[in-house]
Amino acid sequence: MNRNFADKLVEAVKAKGSAICVGLDPRLEKIPSFIKKKALVDGEKSPLRAAAEAIFEFNKGIIDAVCDIVPVVKPQIAFYEIFGWNGIWAYEETLKYAKKKGLLTIADAKRNDIGSTAEAYAKAYLGEVSLFEGENEVITRVFDADSITVNPYLGFDGIKPFISECHKYEKGIFVLLKTSNTSSGDIQDLEMKDGVAVYEIVGQLIESWGADEVGESGYSFVGAVVGATYPKQAARLRALMPNTIFLVPGYGAQGGSASDVKLCFNKDGLGAIVNNSRGIINAYETLHGFGEEGYADAAREAVMKMKEDLLKIF
Amino acid sequence: MNRNFADKLVEAVKAKGSAICVGLDPRLEKIPSFIKKKALVDGEKSPLRAAAEAIFEFNKGIIDAVCDIVPVVKPQIAFYEIFGWNGIWAYEETLKYAKKKGLLTIADAKRNDIGSTAEAYAKAYLGEVSLFEGENEVITRVFDADSITVNPYLGFDGIKPFISECHKYEKGIFVLLKTSNTSSGDIQDLEMKDGVAVYEIVGQLIESWGADEVGESGYSFVGAVVGATYPKQAARLRALMPNTIFLVPGYGAQGGSASDVKLCFNKDGLGAIVNNSRGIINAYETLHGFGEEGYADAAREAVMKMKEDLLKIF
Repeated sequence: MNRNFADKLVEAVKAKGSAICVGLDPRLEKIPSFIKKKALVDGEKSPLRAAAEAIFEFNKGIIDAVCDIVPVVKPQIAFYEIFGWNGIWAYEETLKYAKKKGLLTIADAKRNDIGSTAEAYAKAYLGEVSLFEGENEVITRVFDADSITVNPYLGFDGIKPFISECHKYEKGIFVLLKTSNTSSGDIQDLEMKDGVAVYEIVGQLIESWGADEVGESGYSFVGAVVGATYPKQAARLRALMPNTIFLVPGYGAQGGSASDVKLCFNKDGLGAIVNNSRGIINAYETLHGFGEEGYADAAREAVMKMKEDLLKIF
Repeated sequence: MNRNFADKLVEAVKAKGSAICVGLDPRLEKIPSFIKKKALVDGEKSPLRAAAEAIFEFNKGIIDAVCDIVPVVKPQIAFYEIFGWNGIWAYEETLKYAKKKGLLTIADAKRNDIGSTAEAYAKAYLGEVSLFEGENEVITRVFDADSITVNPYLGFDGIKPFISECHKYEKGIFVLLKTSNTSSGDIQDLEMKDGVAVYEIVGQLIESWGADEVGESGYSFVGAVVGATYPKQAARLRALMPNTIFLVPGYGAQGGSASDVKLCFNKDGLGAIVNNSRGIINAYETLHGFGEEGYADAAREAVMKMKEDLLKIF
């Protein structure tokens, strides 16, 4: 059996001693001013370029500070797209830098489309892209993330092209299931004629999409996004989907506690990755004794505190 | 009452005499070789840059050829993201060029996320982005599309930030409803306890999200994506959602016919925009007498044929 993405993730969780994912969601207004000043020094640069350079610089500091204590980082692409193509440059550089520092990456892009279009996304984010023909032919990797979040609303044929790249390159996906936001129930909680909710059906679909993709670790490379803010639903899904790794947003800033998060794990203490974005990358604002200059140290401290918090639950 | 995006779209449909949307989904392997050669002349350029320049050049030709006979174009961002940040550069340039040529634009990005993240997408695609503070403060538009496609799986709080930008800048959204692909029924057709399908509930949600946003034309700026490949469902949704403009993919290459498409229109001949991508931009491959060099003329001819085909239905 080949080692798949889930095996790599489980191995990294064990090696780093934590199931914490650091969300790299940099907001320009929260970037320490010494970083912004440096990015703005060259007045010839466009402001969007300066912004993109500032967030990449900020991310490098965070990555350096946490790379030995967390297995995985998750840059949320909206906070890069907001700077246009310059932002996507920063996104690519961030993924590369994280990989160089031994971290697994989740491209939080929630991509979705019909099959032929989903294939383009899958190749861009997880696979290889072939350019031109004959003597000009080049095969290249573009984003080369280890995994990507995807949206299931279009059904299986929009998911399949991602699974196909996962096979080829030991990559993974996390399919949106029960999301952490207030109105996630608008569609996800609709009740079917047999009393089952839409999210339960989607959970069964996800588990079935991954059924043939279970690795040595007992987990498949088809993961699911399950918010810590809905503990009852998380518990239900955990029971329904023993072989699926949950990517769990909603801890911290969004209100999810360690005991809420506990329900997302299997009894073996595996099966979930808990994301924290603002609580870690902006920790310098709330933790005492750091200040802007110490934003990276504050992030490390916040990870250590989260680690302790999560250890209490087992 | 302010003129909203729907009013602008209806006005453009009337002015151009067609409800056709040209899908700008350029695939490098389909770009005429004279364009690729030109992009490759400078050997110093990275292959991804050359690819991005080739697709932008290709798009310019298409836009020039169709801008007086169609109201709107829809570049599908996956076919740009596949070239990384260079591709996003081409995406931005394509949107700008289309606007310059008097076309409305739909950023086909199917974005979706929790509220605070959706806000970043909404500002990037539809609104304005504020960068830095004090003497360095700059307010800029990034993608500045007229509208964007979005995915409803996260419910209203992921849609709201887009609606808020639509208000400010006379922009619009098209929410995925019943998509054109084979497995769209996996989730969209699930049957609720009262016998209603998920897509019908989502249709009601979309109509309600747009209820306060109806302009002079009688249509709201909250549109819906309804595939021509599911005529029965389209007819049902048309009846349910009188004030919603349908963006209709699936005509042509995906199998939808003019009579299927008819069901997406209201009796006044309005209320739908019919997209065609491959059938137009790659028409030089199928229409006689054009060849690669005449790809833009072939695209125009394909639009004229589609126009005739659609005229037959009324």
